[in-house]
Amino acid sequence: MDRRDFLIDGAAGSVSIAALAPGLLSAAVLSSSQDTILRLNHNANPLGMPPASKQAILDSLVDLPHYPDGPPRDRLIQQLASLHLVSNDQVVLGQGSTEIIRAAVQAHAAPGGRVLQADPTYENATRYAEPFPYRIEKIPLTPSFAHDVERMSNMGKKWKEPIVVYICNPNNPTGTITASADLDTWISSAPDNLFFIVDEAYYPLVNDPRYWSAEKWASKRDNIVVCRTFSKLYGIAGLRIGYGLCSPQTARRLQPYLNRSSPNTLAVVAASAALQDKDWHNASVKIWSECKKVVTDCLDDLGLHYFESHTAFLFHAIHGDQDLYIRRMRDQDILVGRKFPPILSHNRLSLSSTPEGLVRFTDTLRKFRNAGWI
Amino acid sequence: MDRRDFLIDGAAGSVSIAALAPGLLSAAVLSSSQDTILRLNHNANPLGMPPASKQAILDSLVDLPHYPDGPPRDRLIQQLASLHLVSNDQVVLGQGSTEIIRAAVQAHAAPGGRVLQADPTYENATRYAEPFPYRIEKIPLTPSFAHDVERMSNMGKKWKEPIVVYICNPNNPTGTITASADLDTWISSAPDNLFFIVDEAYYPLVNDPRYWSAEKWASKRDNIVVCRTFSKLYGIAGLRIGYGLCSPQTARRLQPYLNRSSPNTLAVVAASAALQDKDWHNASVKIWSECKKVVTDCLDDLGLHYFESHTAFLFHAIHGDQDLYIRRMRDQDILVGRKFPPILSHNRLSLSSTPEGLVRFTDTLRKFRNAGWI
Repeated sequence: MDRRDFLIDGAAGSVSIAALAPGLLSAAVLSSSQDTILRLNHNANPLGMPPASKQAILDSLVDLPHYPDGPPRDRLIQQLASLHLVSNDQVVLGQGSTEIIRAAVQAHAAPGGRVLQADPTYENATRYAEPFPYRIEKIPLTPSFAHDVERMSNMGKKWKEPIVVYICNPNNPTGTITASADLDTWISSAPDNLFFIVDEAYYPLVNDPRYWSAEKWASKRDNIVVCRTFSKLYGIAGLRIGYGLCSPQTARRLQPYLNRSSPNTLAVVAASAALQDKDWHNASVKIWSECKKVVTDCLDDLGLHYFESHTAFLFHAIHGDQDLYIRRMRDQDILVGRKFPPILSHNRLSLSSTPEGLVRFTDTLRKFRNAGWI
Repeated sequence: MDRRDFLIDGAAGSVSIAALAPGLLSAAVLSSSQDTILRLNHNANPLGMPPASKQAILDSLVDLPHYPDGPPRDRLIQQLASLHLVSNDQVVLGQGSTEIIRAAVQAHAAPGGRVLQADPTYENATRYAEPFPYRIEKIPLTPSFAHDVERMSNMGKKWKEPIVVYICNPNNPTGTITASADLDTWISSAPDNLFFIVDEAYYPLVNDPRYWSAEKWASKRDNIVVCRTFSKLYGIAGLRIGYGLCSPQTARRLQPYLNRSSPNTLAVVAASAALQDKDWHNASVKIWSECKKVVTDCLDDLGLHYFESHTAFLFHAIHGDQDLYIRRMRDQDILVGRKFPPILSHNRLSLSSTPEGLVRFTDTLRKFRNAGWI
């Protein structure tokens, strides 16, 4: 199997490619602007997207001259409401879950306001907070790399101004989980000036009795939005679609901060079709598990530490300078994760290729070891 | 030609449909969720999208598992910078020009702030202003249905707080233009607390010596963003992509309000391909002109007033109650424009079907006349 085969499998997956009409296959395969590069710097499904999503996109090209508001959008909201046992007005669609995070950060901006989050964690909340008078409070993870809920909740009692609590569970970039019981206790008893953004981008990949979704709070409290995305599980990060679950009152509060006529038509129909593919979740979990084994076997061999991952990435030690490591991988046409300070000893590797495709990465890692680079 | 033929032509255009592989044609044509309905309620190109845009979408399906940041986005920015003779850092991409409007409104929100705009005009700026302490100042159009620049500029001198001036030129829903020389005078001499959003969504359709783009101010002043869209001319409203032209400093100021990892991959490649279709602009202007003639001939026959339109829609008298008119058209499976108060005597008709398709509308209008409804 040559490198090109890896990439065809890895970039979008044989399942989804097969769904294209034969006449279009070569064009599609040749299309990738980065198709000589193994992209492990962002989290993408090695299987690509569900075939039904691809078909839905093709079927909806005829609708593109028209704005996206309409029956397909209503249908998707209905599907999500049924899935999460909430009412339609508790589902807020976004152009990726990033838009929900943005809206929540913007909606609570006030002089003296705070963003309270773990360190390290995903950077979106703090980036959207930039133009506002927010102070950013970063609380280190516990020794087991969970959110330090006790310390965070105590800090949350210190101020009367609005506090946006951003919780990424499982956490990005560590891949570790925070016990949901601890979060439940905090969310249920938090003062009114706290608003929780619980980012569950990797929810579908977790299989641990200490972990469950925070979605129930969407029907019990106005102080929370739970964010989910289609980007990872359904392999459509490029289409930009995610959603928030919250109370109807919170939804009304976030709505004016969202882009109008959104998300785009193809994202909506692809997401809607994806939800109907009942085998996709298991197939995706299976391949990511195989991917993980390929890489952790190598990391174990090389004695490189990694965090216990409940996600589609591995945060692993690199025994050296982060910039240098990223550049050396880039020289091998392999894109690995960006820096996540303050843990500069580790690099985030997205399991975004097939197990076979990842062998190219592990082979490279072994060469780095032989060269004394890691 | 039966009604179905009208719709196939009208909804996405024979040009673009022909670009689909034959095996996909029927699926695509049958796909529209609203394909028994003549949609003249939003502005869409009767030709659909350029064939090269459709091909670019098909070619990029393989990239969808990955986030949209990357070379295609950089390429589009470069194309737009070249087109407008500005530097790359003066181009701000948005998920539709609506996102640029949102960012500009949000970036200037402050206690005592104002949104200053015409009445009637497009509602986006005021809607995005809703959650903020903006006061909305609506200034009636002049007797020739231009922006009342003299009165607006005088009002702009009354307050020291931030004032967002939203100017839609040509104006929506009237389709009328405001003399660009008048705007130039105002923009060049406005106090520093004014920020101009000049929405040129219909720029490509104007052919009038009194009108030119405000884009030159993007390189001269920090107090302006000029908004353009791919939605109308390039028939990809459903994909959500537009852009703003402004100074590098203004771009940096708007950036943190935009969604991250945006616009979506397919919008970017479709827009990029569209810009390379040099015949598309003329073909679109030609068909819209033919569309306009079909409808204005009928309006003239029926003695129904309409505004001189420099856009892809006609704002015409309906001689009766607006809600009733909209409902009666809906009963005929024809969607017409929403209400644009305070001018409730007129309805906005989008020229979003082919000239042949619009005959169904004019036939219906004549029947309404026979029934004494208009």
